[in-house]
Amino acid sequence: MMKAAIMGYGTIGSGVAEILEKNRDVIAQKAGQEIALKYVLDLREFPESPVADKIIHDFKVIEADREVGIVVETMGGLNPAYPFVKACLEAGKHVATSNKALVAAHGTELLRIAREKGVNFFFEASVGGGIPIVRSLYRSLAGERIEEIAGILNGTTNYILTKMEKEGETFGEALREAQDLGYAERNPEADVEGWDTCRKIAILTAMATGKEVNFEDIHTEGITQITDTDFKYAQVMGTSIKLFGASRMEGDRTSAFVAPVMIGKDHPLYSVRDVYNGILVKGNMLGTSMFYGSGAGKLPTASAVVADMIEAAQNEACHVPMGWSEERLPIEPIEKARFRYFLRVSGLRKDGEALAVKAFGTADVYEVAGLEEFGLLTGEMTEEEFRQRAEALKREGGPALLQKIRAEL
Amino acid sequence: MMKAAIMGYGTIGSGVAEILEKNRDVIAQKAGQEIALKYVLDLREFPESPVADKIIHDFKVIEADREVGIVVETMGGLNPAYPFVKACLEAGKHVATSNKALVAAHGTELLRIAREKGVNFFFEASVGGGIPIVRSLYRSLAGERIEEIAGILNGTTNYILTKMEKEGETFGEALREAQDLGYAERNPEADVEGWDTCRKIAILTAMATGKEVNFEDIHTEGITQITDTDFKYAQVMGTSIKLFGASRMEGDRTSAFVAPVMIGKDHPLYSVRDVYNGILVKGNMLGTSMFYGSGAGKLPTASAVVADMIEAAQNEACHVPMGWSEERLPIEPIEKARFRYFLRVSGLRKDGEALAVKAFGTADVYEVAGLEEFGLLTGEMTEEEFRQRAEALKREGGPALLQKIRAEL
Repeated sequence: MMKAAIMGYGTIGSGVAEILEKNRDVIAQKAGQEIALKYVLDLREFPESPVADKIIHDFKVIEADREVGIVVETMGGLNPAYPFVKACLEAGKHVATSNKALVAAHGTELLRIAREKGVNFFFEASVGGGIPIVRSLYRSLAGERIEEIAGILNGTTNYILTKMEKEGETFGEALREAQDLGYAERNPEADVEGWDTCRKIAILTAMATGKEVNFEDIHTEGITQITDTDFKYAQVMGTSIKLFGASRMEGDRTSAFVAPVMIGKDHPLYSVRDVYNGILVKGNMLGTSMFYGSGAGKLPTASAVVADMIEAAQNEACHVPMGWSEERLPIEPIEKARFRYFLRVSGLRKDGEALAVKAFGTADVYEVAGLEEFGLLTGEMTEEEFRQRAEALKREGGPALLQKIRAEL
Repeated sequence: MMKAAIMGYGTIGSGVAEILEKNRDVIAQKAGQEIALKYVLDLREFPESPVADKIIHDFKVIEADREVGIVVETMGGLNPAYPFVKACLEAGKHVATSNKALVAAHGTELLRIAREKGVNFFFEASVGGGIPIVRSLYRSLAGERIEEIAGILNGTTNYILTKMEKEGETFGEALREAQDLGYAERNPEADVEGWDTCRKIAILTAMATGKEVNFEDIHTEGITQITDTDFKYAQVMGTSIKLFGASRMEGDRTSAFVAPVMIGKDHPLYSVRDVYNGILVKGNMLGTSMFYGSGAGKLPTASAVVADMIEAAQNEACHVPMGWSEERLPIEPIEKARFRYFLRVSGLRKDGEALAVKAFGTADVYEVAGLEEFGLLTGEMTEEEFRQRAEALKREGGPALLQKIRAEL
């Protein structure tokens, strides 16, 4: 029997406790031994909960109890999650976490400690909720040179964008609705500014390359600048707009970004709607594959934590190679990345089209009835080239650009 | 360094050799050691190939060479694949195979030998080609009680059905085209009769439940009875027809079948087209997730074999728990499974509708212009109930049934 502790009895932590109880037999069968919950660390009391008698408030109890073989960290944030997890690994305990902030900020060090101590630091739940992408990237696609990852990695923003698309809502309306439903937090910046997606694509890119990725190196834009007008064009063009976390690996060069991207109906991620997540992976041998599922939510995310616990129990006495080394992966500046661009241009088409098209080379032109502006879809160019062309347009007194959305069309 | 042998230098086997060479550095990094190909067993010579100097014709060389730590089996079929694989495991060598016939027929025994000998018998490539479904089911969804698996598991039949749908071709026309393109074999029975899908859903069901599944217990229908007329109705109804391998687990009861199923646009597998595979998995905690990718093809399938080789190299000295026990999972007879049914009924709607609808209870009625027949979509009932109702319709002199396709609508 393996004794476990959960640190943080919030949504995910309580989900882990629930699954350990509900799927006890399946878990014991797969793990080769029973996994028994011994402690739940939280500042609060939960007198009505099924774990009322397991609640403790002092981390040192877990750290010092040699019976506890695996610790689940579902507190979120860096403090005290980071020092607690570090102490657990150093005490020779396996750790499973759902905390992408922790993994993105301190994963390299925690993986090193786990290796040194012969235990495991697992974090399947930190990306894609219940979608088994972390382990798949590392293990099932182990023989691949991964060339591209593109993911809809944040359910909150995907819900907001879906609402804007389907019901013509503004960003603000859709955000409020998401907040009312509990899909978005009162302070929604981490989601809508793309920070959450940034940490997740950093983790996936590190898993794919085996090297450390500094999430601060990743150019990150959120969805706050996306408007209902943009979606009017998308409708005319038969496209959609999704928040992508993406990276591309070509030889020694890696680029990565978080930004809204306009995609067409043929794109495998086109039909990923509402709070769902989808992740596309392109390998040099495998071609394209796609993973789809609940990217968040109590039980799906907790289920991924439990899978990690099971693998830890199976490998109680040994470190399973998984994760990345201490070598840092250089991320190319966004200026060198190549995209097509969807642009909205101020003024009537007849007045501005010639100058605008000339500025960006060839481009397709789109109009939405009733608007004093028009849309352009440029050819592919680097961000740097785009900036230069946009500046030239301005210098020559051309029409103003109202919007710029990267496009994979 | 780990020395490897490949048995069978056909499409997949040569793909494995190619990936070992092309992705040598990634593989060594992930495996923690270099994997070096020592032998390729085949009856033929390949004087022009990069493995010309590694070709051998005598299996005993591999069996007796203690340096060979891992053997890849890509011969297909049961003989001599089965005795060769068994001998390798008994000689203490890890085995990775792409051979679903072998895994479905002898997996239980081979898994037992691997356990006893402390080596690994891996078969990710046997289902879904490059889609990492086998390992995900067992490991990433380890804490789940899997309730349902539904997969488009055969690229050949999916290509044929896609052609029939998109271009109005008959089954025969689409099959010939698939044969001309090399997607279907000259003797296409294993694909078009559903036998290939049957073995694959048997393997997935065993991975999901941890129990042995006898593929012969699974009711299996292919696509040879699907006609271009069926797709005319599908178009009117806004549906598609796909060959499913599916199983449902409810408490101690498991049902499984292989058959064409009519599905709607909202079904996650609706947009899986051409030679692609898609697999939907429903867990009691996770909800629904979906895996999509190249279900066949030289390099995607070989990539899955290489991932198995890497995991074997990482676990050179130990058996990784994976697979199923010797306990047999009883599969319920198909008569007890519940479906809706799409039926085509002979004669004009005005003559037959009343009797037909009465026979099957409430049903939606569909017509295709110009046909002297009409379509029915029944409510849900067991196969047994369906049979009784169909017999009753016949007894009462009702119109003849021209077609019956199970529906998930």
